[in-house]
This record gives sequence, C-alpha cells and structure tokens, in this order.
Amino acid sequence: MRSMDYTIEPIGIVRSELTRLADAPMQGDEGAPKAWLELTPSAAPGLMGIKAGDELFVLTWLHLAQRDVLQVHPRGDISRPLSGVFTTRSPDRPNPVGLHRVSVLEVMEGKLQVAPLEAIDGTPIVDIKPILSGTDPSDR
Amino acid sequence: MRSMDYTIEPIGIVRSELTRLADAPMQGDEGAPKAWLELTPSAAPGLMGIKAGDELFVLTWLHLAQRDVLQVHPRGDISRPLSGVFTTRSPDRPNPVGLHRVSVLEVMEGKLQVAPLEAIDGTPIVDIKPILSGTDPSDR
Repeated sequence: MRSMDYTIEPIGIVRSELTRLADAPMQGDEGAPKAWLELTPSAAPGLMGIKAGDELFVLTWLHLAQRDVLQVHPRGDISRPLSGVFTTRSPDRPNPVGLHRVSVLEVMEGKLQVAPLEAIDGTPIVDIKPILSGTDPSDR
Repeated sequence: MRSMDYTIEPIGIVRSELTRLADAPMQGDEGAPKAWLELTPSAAPGLMGIKAGDELFVLTWLHLAQRDVLQVHPRGDISRPLSGVFTTRSPDRPNPVGLHRVSVLEVMEGKLQVAPLEAIDGTPIVDIKPILSGTDPSDR
C-alpha cells in the first residue's frame, strides 16, 4: 500500500487518567501523569524491541483541536502578542499532531506505559519514534 | 472546523535540490542540504514570528513510503536484527510522518529556508513546531 492519500490511520489510543482537556497540562513536564499507549493488533508488531527505560517521541492526533487557527496568544496569555501557530505548541493548528517526549516505564503485549504524557484519554496515536542521540538541548 | 477525521491537509511543500530518494541521506545530519519550505497561502500566516536562527521541528508526510511495513532491519542493514518500525526512523511505517530538526536560515513571504533537511523535493509539509528548551540530549 502506498500512501497516496494523507489519511492518518491511528496505530493505537492513549489510556490516561486525564479525561478532560481542562485538566491536561500544556506540556508533559508540567505535571503530566503516566499513561498507557494501547496499540491496535495490526500495529503492535511495530513495538518489537522497545524496552523500559527507552526515550521516545510519541506523535498523537489532538482530536479535539480546532484546525482553522493560524495565530494565537502563546499559552493562551492575552498579554503576549499574537504569534503564528508554527512558533507555538498550541494544539489548535491546521494539522493537530501532538509531539510528546516520553520515557517508557513498562512494556506489555501490545502496549507501553509511558510518562509524562499530557494527552487526554482517548487521543489517537499517530506514530512512535526513537530519539536520536545528540549533544544539543532537547525537546522537553 | 473540528478535526473529526484524520486527514492531513498539507500546509506547504519542500523545495529541495534532492529529487531522488536514492540521493537523500537517512538523517539530516548526514549531509542533507538546505531547502525551502513553501507554505500554502492559507497556512502562511502561521509563520508570523519565525526568524533566522530559530531551531524548529518540521513534520512532513513521506509520500513515497510504504505503509504496510511493521518490522525492518535498521538502516536497511540486513546484518542487524529485524526490529519494530517504532524503534527506528524508517520512512516505511503505518503513518509516514517525518520528523526533522532544522535551523532557519532565511525568512521570506510565505516561505522559510532551512537546513539540514533530508526530505526530497515535493514532500508535503504537515506541521512546523518550536523546539522547547531543556537540558537533555537532543534529537539530531
């Protein structure tokens, strides 16, 4: 199958104690809890080799986002000047893909427990990627 | 508009001297060239505030990828054991979203010149995000 179209097929779903957007921190390092990444049976073989202690990027589809927003006040703070969404991590953006840096706590058949993750329960998962080694400041 | 479906609407396209996958390095820091990110007129206002010197993540849709691949030999090296695609940066994966860390070289109306970028000419752009500050090893 070639990706001739641009439709995300979720590889799984976030299972979290966070059930309301209002309770979710803006970033993982702002008190986000641990969560389970439950993969679909068809995607689960892609986890082979992931182990506790690994550092990963999780890409999600922020399904409650508004996609017609192009400029925002950073962090919703109206005292800050309006900025292009591509200078911010606002979930409201044309393609609401969330990028989350997490550590793997536990691996079970077809699922991973990770932390911290600010995405709410039921958020579709787009992809999981290893973090490449390097020497510069990280994405936290 | 709510993102009730999972369809990527490209915000722009990569313009690069790289025109063939065979010529593209596997990662940006393996000799990838500079490239232009040309945004669509509707997405261009989202660039407001981006300036030369900024460090960004660019998310692309690797449109030539195969989406039915779940396990690969890392970097195509058959001497390395088969691994889940989610432990690798293989473009062949269920949702072929590329994650590229770049520096902004130049900003013009509706477009950015960035480097390094290993995505080939014509690759659709999904999103652009700032890199958050931190102290851990980066994604390079």
